[in-house]
Amino acid sequence: MKTTQNNEKLRVAICGGSGYTGVELLRILSGHPRVRITAVTSEKSAGKKISVLFPHLQKYQNLSYEHLHKTALMEKADLFFLALPHGASQEAVNFFFNNDKRVIDLSADYRLSDPKVYQEWYGLPHKYLATLKKAVFGLPEIYRSSIKKARLIANPGCYPTGAILGLLPAIKGKLIDLSSLIIDSKSGTTGAGRKADLAVSFCEVNEGFKAYGIGTHRHTPEIEQELSSAAGRKIRVNFTPHLLPVDRGILTTIYASLSKKADTASVLSLYKKMYQDEPFVHVLDEGIFPNIKNVRGTNFCHIGIKVVPRTNTLIIVSAIDNLVKGASGQAVHNMNIMMGFEETTALESLALFP
Amino acid sequence: MKTTQNNEKLRVAICGGSGYTGVELLRILSGHPRVRITAVTSEKSAGKKISVLFPHLQKYQNLSYEHLHKTALMEKADLFFLALPHGASQEAVNFFFNNDKRVIDLSADYRLSDPKVYQEWYGLPHKYLATLKKAVFGLPEIYRSSIKKARLIANPGCYPTGAILGLLPAIKGKLIDLSSLIIDSKSGTTGAGRKADLAVSFCEVNEGFKAYGIGTHRHTPEIEQELSSAAGRKIRVNFTPHLLPVDRGILTTIYASLSKKADTASVLSLYKKMYQDEPFVHVLDEGIFPNIKNVRGTNFCHIGIKVVPRTNTLIIVSAIDNLVKGASGQAVHNMNIMMGFEETTALESLALFP
Amino acid sequence: MKTTQNNEKLRVAICGGSGYTGVELLRILSGHPRVRITAVTSEKSAGKKISVLFPHLQKYQNLSYEHLHKTALMEKADLFFLALPHGASQEAVNFFFNNDKRVIDLSADYRLSDPKVYQEWYGLPHKYLATLKKAVFGLPEIYRSSIKKARLIANPGCYPTGAILGLLPAIKGKLIDLSSLIIDSKSGTTGAGRKADLAVSFCEVNEGFKAYGIGTHRHTPEIEQELSSAAGRKIRVNFTPHLLPVDRGILTTIYASLSKKADTASVLSLYKKMYQDEPFVHVLDEGIFPNIKNVRGTNFCHIGIKVVPRTNTLIIVSAIDNLVKGASGQAVHNMNIMMGFEETTALESLALFP
Amino acid sequence: MKTTQNNEKLRVAICGGSGYTGVELLRILSGHPRVRITAVTSEKSAGKKISVLFPHLQKYQNLSYEHLHKTALMEKADLFFLALPHGASQEAVNFFFNNDKRVIDLSADYRLSDPKVYQEWYGLPHKYLATLKKAVFGLPEIYRSSIKKARLIANPGCYPTGAILGLLPAIKGKLIDLSSLIIDSKSGTTGAGRKADLAVSFCEVNEGFKAYGIGTHRHTPEIEQELSSAAGRKIRVNFTPHLLPVDRGILTTIYASLSKKADTASVLSLYKKMYQDEPFVHVLDEGIFPNIKNVRGTNFCHIGIKVVPRTNTLIIVSAIDNLVKGASGQAVHNMNIMMGFEETTALESLALFP
Repeated sequence: MKTTQNNEKLRVAICGGSGYTGVELLRILSGHPRVRITAVTSEKSAGKKISVLFPHLQKYQNLSYEHLHKTALMEKADLFFLALPHGASQEAVNFFFNNDKRVIDLSADYRLSDPKVYQEWYGLPHKYLATLKKAVFGLPEIYRSSIKKARLIANPGCYPTGAILGLLPAIKGKLIDLSSLIIDSKSGTTGAGRKADLAVSFCEVNEGFKAYGIGTHRHTPEIEQELSSAAGRKIRVNFTPHLLPVDRGILTTIYASLSKKADTASVLSLYKKMYQDEPFVHVLDEGIFPNIKNVRGTNFCHIGIKVVPRTNTLIIVSAIDNLVKGASGQAVHNMNIMMGFEETTALESLALFP
Repeated sequence: MKTTQNNEKLRVAICGGSGYTGVELLRILSGHPRVRITAVTSEKSAGKKISVLFPHLQKYQNLSYEHLHKTALMEKADLFFLALPHGASQEAVNFFFNNDKRVIDLSADYRLSDPKVYQEWYGLPHKYLATLKKAVFGLPEIYRSSIKKARLIANPGCYPTGAILGLLPAIKGKLIDLSSLIIDSKSGTTGAGRKADLAVSFCEVNEGFKAYGIGTHRHTPEIEQELSSAAGRKIRVNFTPHLLPVDRGILTTIYASLSKKADTASVLSLYKKMYQDEPFVHVLDEGIFPNIKNVRGTNFCHIGIKVVPRTNTLIIVSAIDNLVKGASGQAVHNMNIMMGFEETTALESLALFP
Repeated sequence: MKTTQNNEKLRVAICGGSGYTGVELLRILSGHPRVRITAVTSEKSAGKKISVLFPHLQKYQNLSYEHLHKTALMEKADLFFLALPHGASQEAVNFFFNNDKRVIDLSADYRLSDPKVYQEWYGLPHKYLATLKKAVFGLPEIYRSSIKKARLIANPGCYPTGAILGLLPAIKGKLIDLSSLIIDSKSGTTGAGRKADLAVSFCEVNEGFKAYGIGTHRHTPEIEQELSSAAGRKIRVNFTPHLLPVDRGILTTIYASLSKKADTASVLSLYKKMYQDEPFVHVLDEGIFPNIKNVRGTNFCHIGIKVVPRTNTLIIVSAIDNLVKGASGQAVHNMNIMMGFEETTALESLALFP
Repeated sequence: MKTTQNNEKLRVAICGGSGYTGVELLRILSGHPRVRITAVTSEKSAGKKISVLFPHLQKYQNLSYEHLHKTALMEKADLFFLALPHGASQEAVNFFFNNDKRVIDLSADYRLSDPKVYQEWYGLPHKYLATLKKAVFGLPEIYRSSIKKARLIANPGCYPTGAILGLLPAIKGKLIDLSSLIIDSKSGTTGAGRKADLAVSFCEVNEGFKAYGIGTHRHTPEIEQELSSAAGRKIRVNFTPHLLPVDRGILTTIYASLSKKADTASVLSLYKKMYQDEPFVHVLDEGIFPNIKNVRGTNFCHIGIKVVPRTNTLIIVSAIDNLVKGASGQAVHNMNIMMGFEETTALESLALFP
């Protein structure tokens, strides 16, 4: 019976469901057989039907946005995806977590384990240090076993996901000089969020391309935290984001000096071995390089490798969809791991090409 | 056991699998639990692995393109999707059909029931008239019951799908003057196919917009055939296609003089009633109009309606994804109906927005 | 001596200089040898250097935005381009005009000669009827001789410019049935203005396409006014605008039933004859049709013609750059005519292709 | 009298005039008062009118493409722009140069002064070593005085122009560690030329982004030649080009370790001083960074600077239009210098924004 079956599904709420990551959660979860969405919040759109605001979400005819009333929401769901602005998420995460709920936080509030680093880059103190300690950084390729046991996931940032996956094997394999890392990233415009803002209006972005946040982007400490942890020592990186006139996708081009002799084939072999059991990381064959178009709408990360002997440099290129592997898809992956669902559930569809 | 299960699946071949509609079939069918793809042909790419040519199709690691050897293919599959060029499809369809296979032809070769009209617009004689008579025009919203019993489906053209679905209720409801139909369509560039052609190179298409094939486009007789059939009398239409600088999507704006008194609400009510049981047609509420972005990657057709009293005109706007509802998705829909599968299987995913 | 020379130039002020039409005036006038820009206003950006807000305008290093203080501005300039919002322009135009200045108004406030029609479509009364009577509709191809003698130009809207130029010869030549006009227009996103608005944000517009303002767009009465005037009788039209995911350009596809026998060649001949002396209208040869890309950044209007005998329909396609021929370029053209400058001054550069 | 005046103008021929750089020369030179185009060649389009192939070039109604018959062309022009494929240019340059003509070669054939390096990267021997010795690398910001006296200009590549201008002051000022240069460039698709090629077809490029030619791009030795010359010692660089889904523009992000203490302000001051007399290089103020959109259609190079103290890195971002400053505009600049014309003639128009 339909109703009974529904009741057996995991009850899920999305807090902050009218931004691009929230809407992407609705898209992905619409194909998840083990999940029932019971509430979606939006302060700006409370009271409006989802299918009116987003005509592509006709499937959610019976769901309307509501206000984020925490106590009321508690009754409605067992797992909370939080797609709230940085800062605003701190308290909501703490509340749901301390009320025994499972929480997957797509904001940056629980990603940085050192609250001093958080304060330095986000300009805010972290007020929930006990809860912060319980958070697991939700990159399954590193923390799968912790995610299984966690109740609070700090879902990684989009840029960090592409950068860390690209560098991890090289660092683990001790291939590179850690003092020379250059991470040059290019992101589609959904990365800026869904908002009325002249800077992301069509005519300002279209046919344009620029760097931004040079030397100051908040994803820098997140990348450094994870690379340092992998390396076993403190690493600083140069990270430069750029704005691409496309909807989705991050391509990251990484430069590192080789610290030992290696050629493209041997590095590729190391990468393929390290990621061989990962359902969402594809290391491409020699001579093939990633294109954001090939991962669009998917949870896949494509990685290409080139060793340039004349400069003794390892160049790594990774591609993800910032809204999927870089946000909502990875969040669902984390949920699947946490709940013991098949990991790839609702995440198997192939790229929309072209 | 996996193998046994596979053997119970419908064995499907795709002839012409390296163009955009062929690749789209691979994408859609990758999520179909009742189907196993046993062969994919491409003359140009025979011998190459699908996943090398299309890195987003990593899932098809074990499948390579082969030549279209009809007798060899016969052994491999029970249902054939033919995504061959117009003209080239005539004989292949005839061969597989006469060898008791099920055939879904995505070319135009079996769409026009009158071979004289075919010859006039395509410049070729039709050589398989007996087979032509067996073909069912694969628009489920009109021909569902025939499709159920058919073995040969002529899958509709992309423009005709959007135009016919937009006009059908108005014609059936005898709302409009049939002598005044204007069909102004705008299509994404995938509609031109996958080919090395200066006319569709990025820098020629991007930031551009133009009409083409004015008064001469080959989809004109297909639209006229179906509208005439619905009206019960011969109709001629003005059909003008335009090339949009986007990958996917067709928006069709249709103008017709009202032949009886009607307002937007009453016309909408007629449209909603007619399409109420159709899983892939959404008639939007008053004041909401289609955007190709809202159907991207899906098999949905969105329809919006406006009556303009000051000119006594009914304006209908429809939106589809030309590669899905306008080609490969509709082909899979036809297969589902023909095979008795759940109609929406593999076609339920929501639009990739943005 | 530079200063003396400067003093001999026409002193020009731009009111509303931080929107796309204002910025386009700055671009075009930067190459005008007879003009000196003495003031540019912007309420939002007053006090800021133009070259800081718009790094592509480095040439205007010494110019900053100021507030629209009318009395102060009076001293500074002899000719005023007004690129203010509709409604806001009414009073400013009246002020400068009544103080013996020349005014070219890019808003809609003085385009509709009948104040009742203005009130009906813009929801505001017109408060300056005496000034309104002095305004000349600034379409040089129709009103050149009046423009020469005018002091107040109502610069035409972007859609009306493309639609009127496309239809004028057919109406003048009495070729078409005036009761059947369909005007289907597609505009680049600059047409929506420069503003923080979710509806024109990159990710909402890119890869999308939609109709808007169906049956209600405010350019409808402007088109009807001019076509009625050309026809010598009241005409109503169906006008439907669409939003293209490009920066610039309007393509207008026009459908009209032929009221007398004609073929493409004869209609083309009529069009070429009518526009033979016009520096900015190019009627394309048979079989060639306009593309907005071919007029980008220019003041040209390209027109293509096709007679479709099987439906007895004349199809006219026109293309302009909405910011140039559809706004600021036409405004400069009007200035040139008014001031007795060579008509094409500062307007001769060719399209930026690609 | 018109004819006399024309005869006094410099007679210019464009060899290879149907590609994007050739067409761009036609666009730019259309506004040059001292030049008359007397011949344009294209093997593929010989006999066709320029205005038919390119409807935006209506101004060239009387000019048709012709074959590259060298002896016939000799009679027609005094200065030759050669926009031929690499390799094909070698002989044509040699011929015209040895017949006392002035030559500006937009190919790579005469850019590398060392013929061994040319052979290594282009796979061809250089057959005209005496002529090669006469070629001046046409970057006016470095070689202005030699260009004045030259008869043969090797017009720089697009990527090298942006990279060299970005790095020159830092190298000259001995600010950086020359062993650590990373040059990460992103180019619009016109950089790939005008051709029927699936790889640059709209649907493959649009909404995509990828790196290509990693470690192997032919512009690498050109960049190294000029940077080495500036540094006074051999430099090797990491240069990675990427393909942007835009028509025009190259943004280059450059990373170098600082070799002496410096902050953003001091580096900016050095850059501004070095380029203060350059008409086409704008060093942007602190906190402002280049966007390719701000130089579109212009001969300007915008440069932005950031020192990142935490990694002791100098990050330089430069933006050019690859078809103008990166090709045809720089070629016209070189012609102006060579001929003693005002340097900025025909190159003063501002960016088409948006």
